[in-house]
Amino acid sequence: MIKIAVLGYGTVGSGVVEVIQTNQKVINERVGEELDIKYVLDLREFPGTPVEKLIVHDFEQIVNDEEVKIVVEVMGGIEPAYTFVKRSLLAGKSVATSNKALVAKHGAELLAIAKEKNINFLYEASVGGGIPIIRPLAAALTGDVIEEITGILNGTTNYMMTKMYNENADYDAVLKEAQARGYAERDPSADVEGHDACRKIAILSSIISGKLVDFEDIYTEGITKISLDDINYAKAMGMKIKLLASCNRSGDKLCAIVAPHLVAKEHPLYNIEDVFNAIFVKGNMLGDSMFYGSGAGKLPTASAVVGDIVEAAKNPNRSMMATWTSEKLELEEKADTTKRFFVRVKGNETELKDALEVAFGTIEVVKLEDKNDEFGFVTEVMSEGAYEAIAAGFPQICHMIRVK
Amino acid sequence: MIKIAVLGYGTVGSGVVEVIQTNQKVINERVGEELDIKYVLDLREFPGTPVEKLIVHDFEQIVNDEEVKIVVEVMGGIEPAYTFVKRSLLAGKSVATSNKALVAKHGAELLAIAKEKNINFLYEASVGGGIPIIRPLAAALTGDVIEEITGILNGTTNYMMTKMYNENADYDAVLKEAQARGYAERDPSADVEGHDACRKIAILSSIISGKLVDFEDIYTEGITKISLDDINYAKAMGMKIKLLASCNRSGDKLCAIVAPHLVAKEHPLYNIEDVFNAIFVKGNMLGDSMFYGSGAGKLPTASAVVGDIVEAAKNPNRSMMATWTSEKLELEEKADTTKRFFVRVKGNETELKDALEVAFGTIEVVKLEDKNDEFGFVTEVMSEGAYEAIAAGFPQICHMIRVK
Repeated sequence: MIKIAVLGYGTVGSGVVEVIQTNQKVINERVGEELDIKYVLDLREFPGTPVEKLIVHDFEQIVNDEEVKIVVEVMGGIEPAYTFVKRSLLAGKSVATSNKALVAKHGAELLAIAKEKNINFLYEASVGGGIPIIRPLAAALTGDVIEEITGILNGTTNYMMTKMYNENADYDAVLKEAQARGYAERDPSADVEGHDACRKIAILSSIISGKLVDFEDIYTEGITKISLDDINYAKAMGMKIKLLASCNRSGDKLCAIVAPHLVAKEHPLYNIEDVFNAIFVKGNMLGDSMFYGSGAGKLPTASAVVGDIVEAAKNPNRSMMATWTSEKLELEEKADTTKRFFVRVKGNETELKDALEVAFGTIEVVKLEDKNDEFGFVTEVMSEGAYEAIAAGFPQICHMIRVK
Repeated sequence: MIKIAVLGYGTVGSGVVEVIQTNQKVINERVGEELDIKYVLDLREFPGTPVEKLIVHDFEQIVNDEEVKIVVEVMGGIEPAYTFVKRSLLAGKSVATSNKALVAKHGAELLAIAKEKNINFLYEASVGGGIPIIRPLAAALTGDVIEEITGILNGTTNYMMTKMYNENADYDAVLKEAQARGYAERDPSADVEGHDACRKIAILSSIISGKLVDFEDIYTEGITKISLDDINYAKAMGMKIKLLASCNRSGDKLCAIVAPHLVAKEHPLYNIEDVFNAIFVKGNMLGDSMFYGSGAGKLPTASAVVGDIVEAAKNPNRSMMATWTSEKLELEEKADTTKRFFVRVKGNETELKDALEVAFGTIEVVKLEDKNDEFGFVTEVMSEGAYEAIAAGFPQICHMIRVK
């Protein structure tokens, strides 16, 4: 029998208990012995629930219990999660976590401890919820140099972008609806400002580079400035607007960014709707691939955590994790990265186009039928630095969205 | 240094050599030591190529060489692949293969030998080419009961279906084009009759059930009867026709089928175009997920084989494979499986509709503008057995396609 402890009986924690109880039989078969939840750590009591008798309030009880072989950290946030996870690993217990903030900030250190102790620190659920992406990167796509990862990594914002596109609803209305459905927090900034997606792409970037990609180094722009007008321009171009979190190999460097992008119909991410997540991966041998599924939600996230628990239980004395070192990777300067830009300009196209073409080179003009006081255009591929320098000379520019 | 031998220097075999040579540095880092191709077995010589000095013609040289730790079988077909793989495993060498026919027919036996010998028999490339699907099923989605796997598992037929849909080209023309591009063999029957997809879904069904699903038990219908008229009916319904290979849990049993299906816009498989493959997986906790990528082709397939080689090299004395026993799983009778059916009928709708509704229950009629001598309809959900019994009473029925 393998005893485990679950830290935190919130949404994901209660999901983990539910998955293990519901699929008990097959899970035990896969592990090869019985998986038993010995403790659930929470500040609260849960009288009348299946975990009533498992609840403990003191982490010392767990870390000092030699019977506990696997600790499941699903509390979220940095503290006390970090301290609990580190102490668990130092005590020789494998850890499975869904905590992206923890992994992005302290992953390198925690992975090193697990490696040293020959145990596991697994975090499949920290990116893409139920979608297997960490394990495929670590254990399947190992013949490839990964050249690009671009993901729709935040379900809340994808729900909002989908709703604005499909229902012509404005930003405030869709945010309210996302909150009403429980997809967005009362303070939605972690989602809508892109911070959540930023931590996730930092983790994926660290895996494919083998070095620490600091999430604070990644330029991050949320969806708060996306208006219905932008959506209508996107429609006029046959595109959609998606919050993309992306890292690309550029020579020896990686460039990483989180920002809304215009995505063309031909791209596999164009079709990813509602709260679904998807991760596009391009390998130098494999070519294009994509992993799609529920990026959040109680049971899908718990499913990924339980997959990690099974893995840790089957392989008690092995490090099978995707790892990176604490050596910090320097990202390519944002100013040096290149792409096309969609730009909205106040004023009259016929008056401005020549000046714009002198400055930006060839542009493709886009107009909306009901907008006479402005127009849009798409540039050729240019660097962010060049774009910014030139755009500074045009005070008529009122908004810019990158093109994937 | 880990020495490997590659059996067969055809498309995939030369791809394996190319992947290992191109990505040598990162692959060796991931393995933790140098991966070295010691032999390439082929009947031919390859003077002036990178493998000139590695070519051997006698398998005995490989199987008797204790230095060779991993054998890569990329010859295809049952013999001599089966004998070579079995002897390699019995000699204590791990095996990586891309050979779906071999895995579908002899997988249970070969997996048992590998388990017994505590080595690996890995076959990621046998399903979905470069798409990681075997490893995610074996090592990530282990908290779930997999309720459904439905795949577009054959790139040739998906290319043909896409082309017919997008270009209004007829079956013979797109087959010729597929042959000209090298997507289809001169004898295309393995692809267009569904045999290739059948072996692949048999492998996936065996993994999720843990028992042997015999490919010969799976009802298999190819795309040879799909005409432009069918495509036009699909368009009229806002659907596409895709060759789906599917297995579903139905109580204690599995039902499996390979057949063209009408797929609605809302389904993730609707958007899978050209030679791409995708595998939709539904877990009882995870919900919907999908794995997308290049299902065939030299480098993507070789990429998956090399991923297996890296896995075997990193884990020399472990069985990490998705396994099943030789106990045969009895599939649900096709007659008992239920779905909706799209049916084409010669004759006049107003004359026939009442009789059809008496027999089939409520139907949804579909008509094409340029077809006056026939019409189509979609049934409610019913069993295959009931459909067949009722359809037998209507000699006017000229074609039936299942609805996903």
